[in-house]
Order: sequence, then structure tokens, then C-alpha cells
Amino acid sequence: MLSLKTSTSPRWLAAVEANLDEVLLDHAHCEKKAAGTAMNLIFAYVDRVELVKSLSAIVTEELDHFKLVIDLLEARGVRFRRLKPSNYGGQLAQLVRTQEPAKAVDRLLVAGLIEARSCERFALLKDRLADRTLAAFYQSLFESEARHHASYVQLARLFADEAEVDRRLDELATAEAEIIDRGDVLPRMHS
Amino acid sequence: MLSLKTSTSPRWLAAVEANLDEVLLDHAHCEKKAAGTAMNLIFAYVDRVELVKSLSAIVTEELDHFKLVIDLLEARGVRFRRLKPSNYGGQLAQLVRTQEPAKAVDRLLVAGLIEARSCERFALLKDRLADRTLAAFYQSLFESEARHHASYVQLARLFADEAEVDRRLDELATAEAEIIDRGDVLPRMHS
Repeated sequence: MLSLKTSTSPRWLAAVEANLDEVLLDHAHCEKKAAGTAMNLIFAYVDRVELVKSLSAIVTEELDHFKLVIDLLEARGVRFRRLKPSNYGGQLAQLVRTQEPAKAVDRLLVAGLIEARSCERFALLKDRLADRTLAAFYQSLFESEARHHASYVQLARLFADEAEVDRRLDELATAEAEIIDRGDVLPRMHS
Repeated sequence: MLSLKTSTSPRWLAAVEANLDEVLLDHAHCEKKAAGTAMNLIFAYVDRVELVKSLSAIVTEELDHFKLVIDLLEARGVRFRRLKPSNYGGQLAQLVRTQEPAKAVDRLLVAGLIEARSCERFALLKDRLADRTLAAFYQSLFESEARHHASYVQLARLFADEAEVDRRLDELATAEAEIIDRGDVLPRMHS
């Protein structure tokens, strides 16, 4: 359902458990970036009313999540600060084709794949985290990530026919799986 | 209360009445830009938790207004499209100092002045527009503009003391009044 081509390894979960506050801080930045990405897409394709309405709702939800994570950090006594991101988003961004309408398709599908990966990982965190308060928090977030994934794939169909969107999604999902399997030295939500 | 140094002339109202659909289209773009400005400020000053929370709420409200204006355009049979903006925002942007923390103060106060001007004009539209459906719409929006103005001025105090914020607000409001008094050839929300 989520289009993903690889599952998160148990090593990732171990790295998260060993660096919970840092990953939570990274998570806050991810929610902020997700809101920013949706906003940038609104600016880029503002004459598509369906896209504008759908992405406006996503901006609002991502900012709500951002505030929730910030509150959680405060409750845990972690000061909110800047943090070096993983290389995941940057590597995905390089896959985006430069000519329209392919560019729009790719930007939307890449955003959708990031939501899918977040969803898969939130599901793992809700089931497996030893910290059950945090587990319950991830339970509360993971459904909306699945919804956002579906919305992004749906919106890509405004710019290409369904078969082309499916073909490109498959291609990008393969690349995403390679990035995830290579991993990252930093403990991050998408390492 | 709104810090403004000049009142909108009756000529502006006449230009709006003669170009209602075009001004409404410009209004939609203004709400989108207001959301984008608040989002950019979140990215620039993300380590200020109070600012992040306050501006997240503003992003959400501006996007809600954006959707309301888009629905209104649809109801009036006006196709949403790109539109050349007035020169108001660009002229105000040139007043922003380049060194921090003065830059933060100016970005927030300029955003606050734009909200103040919108508020003043929405009040005029709600009282004076011959189209009473549209007048009721502006009635429903104008309070939040006043709140946003107050929030921006409050947030500027995170970066400078109250006396300095008041001094700079007075200076920027004088410049804003000159821009408004010069006007613009295009019929726009801020012409």
C-alpha cells in the first residue's frame, strides 16, 4: 500500500533507542520541512485549485505535528536547536527531473515516498519502542502519514496519466530503497 | 492601535468597486504570500519556540483564508490564475535591514504593517462595499488581521527591547504611509 521497496532494518530501531532525544529533535525538523515542502508546492502550482486545497490541509497538519513534537521536547527537557539532517532528503531531491510536467510528478512522488517511509517507521516505533509514552505518540501520528502519501500520489495524477505515475513511482521507490539500505552515519528519522 | 500613519483614500475604494474580481484574485495571492512569509520566518528563526508556535497558527489561518477566497472566486465564476502584484510588498521589503537581529525586527514589523493595512482596508470594505455578500466576507476576516498585527509586533520584542521596537515601528509606518499615498497603477488590495 505504501509503495516502499525495502523494510527498515532492526539496526535502525536500535540506533533510535540509543539516541531518542536526538531523533526526536530530528523529527521536529522533519515535520517543519514537510510543511515547507507542501507550501513550496502550493507556490509552484498555485493555479491548480485541487492541489492548493489538498496541500493547504497538509501544511496545517504538519505544523500541528511540529508543535506537538516541540511540546514533547520541552516536556523531556530537550532544548530545541538546529541539527545536521541526514542525507536522505538531499539524495531524493537529486532524482527530481528538471522539465515540467515531469518535475511536478517527481516532486509530488518524492514527497509521497518520504511520507510513506515516515509512516512505516512510525508504525515500527509505536509497536516496538520501550518508552511507551513515546510509542503512543507515534501511534497518534502514523495514520496521517499514510493519508499524506495517498494524497501526494493522487496529486501527481494531475500532471501525468495513471500508468506513467505508477511507472515513475516504482522507479523512485527503488531508488529510495537503495538510499535507505545504504543508511547514514547519523541517528535520524530517515537514516 | 494599528500603527498606521495614513488612511486609505476614497479613490482606492472606487478602483476596487470597478475591478472587484481582479482585486479578489489579488487578495487570494496576498493570503498565500502571508502564509509563505510566516513559514519563511519559522525557517529563519526556528530556535525561538514562542515565534514558531505563534507563526504556525498564523500560517494555518492565512491558508484557511486563502481557501475561502478561492472558493469565493469559484462561486463568482472567476478562474484562479497568476496576477502581477502591486509594488507595495517589494518596496517594503527594501526597508528591511540586513544585519541580525535588526533584520528579524524589520521582517516581523513589515509583516505586521501589511496585516495592519489589510485590516484597515477590510474594515472599509465591510462598511462600504455595495456587494453586501462580499462585505460580510470582509467582516469575517478583518479581526484576524488585527490579531496578526499585534502578534508580529509582540514577536519583534524577542529581538529588540520595547523602546527600540516602538521607534522602528514608527519609522517603518512612516515609510509605509508614503508608499500607500503614492499608490499604484494596478487595482490591488495594497495599491
